[in-house]
Amino acid sequence: MSGNRFGKIFSLSTFGESHGAAIGGILEGCPAGLDIDFSHIQLQLDRRKPGQSHLTTQRKESDEVQFLSGIFEGKTTGTPIGFQIPNQDQKSKDYSHIKDKYRPSHADYVYQAKYGHRDYRGGGRSSARETACRVVAGAIAEQMLAQSGVEVYAYVSQVGQQSLSKPYQELDLSQVFSNDVRCPDSEMAAVFRQEIEQAKKAGDTLGGCIIGVIKNCPPAWGEPVFDKLNADLAKAMLSINAVKGFEYGSGFEAAKMKGSEHNDEFYQENGKVKTKSNFSGGIQGGISNGEDIYFRIAFKPVATIMRDQQSINEKGESVEVKGKGRHDACVLPRAVPIVRAMAALVLADHSLRQRSNKL
Amino acid sequence: MSGNRFGKIFSLSTFGESHGAAIGGILEGCPAGLDIDFSHIQLQLDRRKPGQSHLTTQRKESDEVQFLSGIFEGKTTGTPIGFQIPNQDQKSKDYSHIKDKYRPSHADYVYQAKYGHRDYRGGGRSSARETACRVVAGAIAEQMLAQSGVEVYAYVSQVGQQSLSKPYQELDLSQVFSNDVRCPDSEMAAVFRQEIEQAKKAGDTLGGCIIGVIKNCPPAWGEPVFDKLNADLAKAMLSINAVKGFEYGSGFEAAKMKGSEHNDEFYQENGKVKTKSNFSGGIQGGISNGEDIYFRIAFKPVATIMRDQQSINEKGESVEVKGKGRHDACVLPRAVPIVRAMAALVLADHSLRQRSNKL
Amino acid sequence: MSGNRFGKIFSLSTFGESHGAAIGGILEGCPAGLDIDFSHIQLQLDRRKPGQSHLTTQRKESDEVQFLSGIFEGKTTGTPIGFQIPNQDQKSKDYSHIKDKYRPSHADYVYQAKYGHRDYRGGGRSSARETACRVVAGAIAEQMLAQSGVEVYAYVSQVGQQSLSKPYQELDLSQVFSNDVRCPDSEMAAVFRQEIEQAKKAGDTLGGCIIGVIKNCPPAWGEPVFDKLNADLAKAMLSINAVKGFEYGSGFEAAKMKGSEHNDEFYQENGKVKTKSNFSGGIQGGISNGEDIYFRIAFKPVATIMRDQQSINEKGESVEVKGKGRHDACVLPRAVPIVRAMAALVLADHSLRQRSNKL
Amino acid sequence: MSGNRFGKIFSLSTFGESHGAAIGGILEGCPAGLDIDFSHIQLQLDRRKPGQSHLTTQRKESDEVQFLSGIFEGKTTGTPIGFQIPNQDQKSKDYSHIKDKYRPSHADYVYQAKYGHRDYRGGGRSSARETACRVVAGAIAEQMLAQSGVEVYAYVSQVGQQSLSKPYQELDLSQVFSNDVRCPDSEMAAVFRQEIEQAKKAGDTLGGCIIGVIKNCPPAWGEPVFDKLNADLAKAMLSINAVKGFEYGSGFEAAKMKGSEHNDEFYQENGKVKTKSNFSGGIQGGISNGEDIYFRIAFKPVATIMRDQQSINEKGESVEVKGKGRHDACVLPRAVPIVRAMAALVLADHSLRQRSNKL
Repeated sequence: MSGNRFGKIFSLSTFGESHGAAIGGILEGCPAGLDIDFSHIQLQLDRRKPGQSHLTTQRKESDEVQFLSGIFEGKTTGTPIGFQIPNQDQKSKDYSHIKDKYRPSHADYVYQAKYGHRDYRGGGRSSARETACRVVAGAIAEQMLAQSGVEVYAYVSQVGQQSLSKPYQELDLSQVFSNDVRCPDSEMAAVFRQEIEQAKKAGDTLGGCIIGVIKNCPPAWGEPVFDKLNADLAKAMLSINAVKGFEYGSGFEAAKMKGSEHNDEFYQENGKVKTKSNFSGGIQGGISNGEDIYFRIAFKPVATIMRDQQSINEKGESVEVKGKGRHDACVLPRAVPIVRAMAALVLADHSLRQRSNKL
Repeated sequence: MSGNRFGKIFSLSTFGESHGAAIGGILEGCPAGLDIDFSHIQLQLDRRKPGQSHLTTQRKESDEVQFLSGIFEGKTTGTPIGFQIPNQDQKSKDYSHIKDKYRPSHADYVYQAKYGHRDYRGGGRSSARETACRVVAGAIAEQMLAQSGVEVYAYVSQVGQQSLSKPYQELDLSQVFSNDVRCPDSEMAAVFRQEIEQAKKAGDTLGGCIIGVIKNCPPAWGEPVFDKLNADLAKAMLSINAVKGFEYGSGFEAAKMKGSEHNDEFYQENGKVKTKSNFSGGIQGGISNGEDIYFRIAFKPVATIMRDQQSINEKGESVEVKGKGRHDACVLPRAVPIVRAMAALVLADHSLRQRSNKL
Repeated sequence: MSGNRFGKIFSLSTFGESHGAAIGGILEGCPAGLDIDFSHIQLQLDRRKPGQSHLTTQRKESDEVQFLSGIFEGKTTGTPIGFQIPNQDQKSKDYSHIKDKYRPSHADYVYQAKYGHRDYRGGGRSSARETACRVVAGAIAEQMLAQSGVEVYAYVSQVGQQSLSKPYQELDLSQVFSNDVRCPDSEMAAVFRQEIEQAKKAGDTLGGCIIGVIKNCPPAWGEPVFDKLNADLAKAMLSINAVKGFEYGSGFEAAKMKGSEHNDEFYQENGKVKTKSNFSGGIQGGISNGEDIYFRIAFKPVATIMRDQQSINEKGESVEVKGKGRHDACVLPRAVPIVRAMAALVLADHSLRQRSNKL
Repeated sequence: MSGNRFGKIFSLSTFGESHGAAIGGILEGCPAGLDIDFSHIQLQLDRRKPGQSHLTTQRKESDEVQFLSGIFEGKTTGTPIGFQIPNQDQKSKDYSHIKDKYRPSHADYVYQAKYGHRDYRGGGRSSARETACRVVAGAIAEQMLAQSGVEVYAYVSQVGQQSLSKPYQELDLSQVFSNDVRCPDSEMAAVFRQEIEQAKKAGDTLGGCIIGVIKNCPPAWGEPVFDKLNADLAKAMLSINAVKGFEYGSGFEAAKMKGSEHNDEFYQENGKVKTKSNFSGGIQGGISNGEDIYFRIAFKPVATIMRDQQSINEKGESVEVKGKGRHDACVLPRAVPIVRAMAALVLADHSLRQRSNKL
């Protein structure tokens, strides 16, 4: 009820504040017998962690996950997988200057309004630090999905006003992590890098877009009516800090199209049902149809900027919020593994839900 | 698990196929003591029903809801509200021609893949007919929300390539239902109407956009992390048939903005915390901040067109799907009460969830 | 949250008051492709309904269930099965005399305390009439379980101070419904009948016990820790009106035994793991082990007696509650199909939950 | 779905095997602003831990709980409370002798059948060690309940064939922990102690009963139909390892009583509704009525005995299971804080669920 769980069968619960002792989670419902590749999990965590390159915040969090249960002799046992990531870089004194201030476009005010008592250090529970737990669980989900051949990709397609025009079909998705911007098109990656560096120099921040692609998803995943696969993907993505929009398949462009242009014609090839176009984005009636699933999400620019801003404090008095600390000028590169993780969690859950639909 | 429930405390379960005996639902968790205005519920249903104007399908469904429980002497009792809407216009013979065919961009194929056995008549469970149940529950949610002063609006802002440029702040939202297009700007309404009539004549269909606005939502609704208010709104909207995208506040435009432009500055007015701009769309950290909540969603053009299309049947053989029947050239006008209902369901649920957050 | 749902995957939601328009429910999660034997469902309903014999209340409810969705051409489609049972014998005037009185050991007072507004007619939602919906869903669950060979039995083993001493192993469980008392031992059935008739003549009521037996349950159903099969059975049984206790396997007798007497020794027979004794009652660590599951539950005597009783009204004033109306002197015979239904619902749900435990 | 969560709003998820790195949990839904008394939590843990007296197992687990989140400056913040208890006494080599054997009346076989891969050391997830996490959460629940004046008690009322005949009303419940047997009647405590010592000497184990009492529970807690307060208490208790039966109020004795004897007459005293007798056990129609709630549960004798037993191994071969290790001859004394914790969890959850029932 308090919104810290995701998924119905393959289900993640998380805990933790950015400056508490640790963050962590419990992953329930992962079937028994899955060989765990721990290095893949750590790799994904490393791709999310701060301080990776000069593009990202210089905060240093080693982000080493410790598994506490549910894995025995390298394999899942079907029991809950408990894990934690200790918070090592807790410099709490950094935050005394915002103790009772409401930083613009942060969650300080709404937490105060909601709970009356809050851990103000670094945003506490509202910090994007909690997404590290999603990455841990998502990396396990990816390993389970790999058993069915399902592949999950994500990459940066837009930074600020610069946007990659090539569709995902023309990109080599294996190259996403070949650069620190996480754009598989090296030319656009260079453009994005320059944009971010410029914003950083100006003490400002940039938003952008990430595109997600799921390949080899079998037909029949997703539930009709409320738990449509697209609806669960939308929720998953909008639950990521700073995400402002989601579209899948034809997305907002569909609004401008005619039915005669938009309909995806069915045909059969080698005994497999396929569609000629894929405006549906691999999902029809909320259920996967075997085609590629693809979606795009928008991130706002990070709220923490290196400039002084006007605001109020808990008493309602006008105050100045100083621009200081160590933050990302653009979170998009670090958000790529988070998007991937959330997509994998949705799919893993629906792959298990699907097991109960037929006699 | 099978995806036919929405909401955690204020929670709707629905059942029903388009051509079965009835559709209906159970609304659980509505607090006791709410005076029910039945005429408001029927009004919302009438705004959704087919055959209202020459713009919409000529199918005739009287859509009269029957309440079976949970309301006594005009007031809710706190027990489940059971209701049903009999299916009166069941002309099943109309559908024999598609019995084993997969209509393009419909859910016929995925239902067959998922269940192996399906009610093919009019799309069965995948038909948008089930949304009538959402409207019933949403109209009750609106009445509960009205007790806290919360108001929910929705209107058509785009039809095909025509789009209303005025922001919602410049419109008189009380005028949404003054015309059959459900656009409060009468000039744009006329343009939209013309577009729809043209598409209809051409046997084609149009998509479009709807904007939702929630006024007077108190601060502190919405849960952090996974059940953010924006995440639940996104899921609610994407669960509506034909919806392809969702954005709230600054939405996809945010991707192009800088932090220094996007941040909403706090100030206090008459003891109330407010923000100067509202790019946040009334939600920060997943929690309402007291400002207007607004969002925009995209609908694809309806898949049923009055033209013959190529497809395959259950055996994988090439077949022709004939363009016939009675369908909407554009569902946007009828979707307005559905969007409103889903938004009201999300808010009603979070208003009750919020009750447990403090001692 | 409001407690009107049972089961996680194979899941029943119910609605309805005893004197409203109808009671009914939605059964979600029943896999597609199950042939429905409607006569079996009606048979179970008939075994529960009032007015069957002179032993039970003379109220007449035809209790005919109407299915509204989820079944097409005689088979389940995997979509929600909506159903209702109209309330035909609503004689509301019978209840004006208790409108604002709290009948002893009824739920009138607690409903008033909980909701502030209640349907006082015949107990409203607290009436055992709602159990008819459980019987409908349970009869479908039994049909699903039959596909795996699982058989569910229940019978009356005690009425008031009279008790059947033979264990279930010595009874012919196919004979439960051969008499109106629902005890497969015809001699004890005669004794029980006499007890009930005597109590009825005296305007009094009797409690008793029912034993449930599940045969051929495969190993591995039930979840560890909180959702143990025995824990879910206990909850299922205690959720039935008037039930005061539950024990399974050795039950309360286990408290008196030593470990060396109580342990069930494993052996193998024809490649199947078995235990020599079965004090475990077919469940170990919360998970079925392939042996018979058996349990016993206690019912209190019905609260409605044909004698005048002292009580208070909503204002707290002393009042007399008249003994009148048409009620059962002993509900045990009619409770047998309810116990069976609840056991079947628990098993059906766990059979589906079990599908996700291994890769 | 995998059964590791308890509660809907005030909700505990646990993880951990007896011989993994740690056990732990996440407590969600605890309202913000609760002052945490950490010494009370540790006290309850100490009352559960092994090695407390010569009556209990000599295994030494310091069982020190570490809180990782959700508490700031000594008060709950409304965010998830993550905690862990490291496993310090992991002597894994002790268990190699049972690696592939099925110990009689343990969960070894069913875990193998269910998951195909299991942590065989000390029972793994099926070990009662996980109940330490329940005690942590239960101790927080008790602190929340104390705000409403609710008090939760439990004590040993039976060991083997020896039973305390006095009802709870005649005992001083503040004296439960005055002796190592956890029976507030010192004479019976001495008898119980002797029984346990005798069984221990004989290498055998004993079962017994625990009685739980809840005082000052306000009326209106508990939900009608499936989530009756008594049903949730039954599930809570049956989810504790070794519990075989549950009864509340008049319990199994009710089966022998007549309605005219059993009904609890209402009266009013100082503006408060009360009942003259309390056979209802403080719960009517599944909802608390303000009277004392009391229940009794039966524990089987522990399965681990210090005698050699016949069994089979994973291949189905006959093997001998040696009686060795460090185990309790009777778990009842250590189970008292677990029973109390589970009762507190049920009540805390229903106290929050109750908040949504009225406008």
